[in-house]
Amino acid sequence: MQATISPGFRKLLQEPAYCQIATLMPDGSPQITQVWVDTDGEHILINTAEGRQKERNVRRDPRVAVNVVDPANAWRIAIVRGRVVDITTAGADQLIDQLAKKYLNEDTYPFRQPKEVRIILKILPEKINEIGLEEVA
Amino acid sequence: MQATISPGFRKLLQEPAYCQIATLMPDGSPQITQVWVDTDGEHILINTAEGRQKERNVRRDPRVAVNVVDPANAWRIAIVRGRVVDITTAGADQLIDQLAKKYLNEDTYPFRQPKEVRIILKILPEKINEIGLEEVA
Repeated sequence: MQATISPGFRKLLQEPAYCQIATLMPDGSPQITQVWVDTDGEHILINTAEGRQKERNVRRDPRVAVNVVDPANAWRIAIVRGRVVDITTAGADQLIDQLAKKYLNEDTYPFRQPKEVRIILKILPEKINEIGLEEVA
Repeated sequence: MQATISPGFRKLLQEPAYCQIATLMPDGSPQITQVWVDTDGEHILINTAEGRQKERNVRRDPRVAVNVVDPANAWRIAIVRGRVVDITTAGADQLIDQLAKKYLNEDTYPFRQPKEVRIILKILPEKINEIGLEEVA
């Protein structure tokens, strides 16, 4: 039950858009965090560090909801339900630097902590609701 | 286990901030919607219409997470876990017009549907994480 990322949504994911991800706490209650976001065209990619609450949450229950919105236009938005299908260190260091470039215009992620292990959460969208993302010619 | 809305968070809630609310679907998976937001000083107030998915969700399970962020500054943000303690029509028509004024600069909510019944979800914060909301003198 995979949903396809449209060209308009892909474009938004490649911009420095705001992104919120909801995961499930051990007691089943929802938790939100705001994150940087990217895409490989098929998955939504979130970069985090090992041991964070949202990593522990998605290892227990991979079901997530994701909101991606243009900070300059609240009516240009995609809201996703899906699941984390992979958690990997592969490419994670490279991706966090790419995200630092996109969001901060810094060549290297400046908030790196000693011994921090960066990971990528790969989210497969199962349901996508879009507003205002029609492709511009 | 109530968390207090700080002066800095109250100020953000009174601005046309972006707000996302996560609720729980019948199968326990998270759902996000983007909404307009206000506060009475103690609760976070969301205005919606009867019958929407998020209303059905919070009537079944009142646990929610809420993200409030300044669209001009991603580092000015509050993230809340809490629960819906009241769902009421009282004041809801007035509030949606106030929200239309705040977010759209319209005196009357322009998207009203015939027979729509507006309601307020009153959310009691139980845990608040703030970034960048220190009060400005």
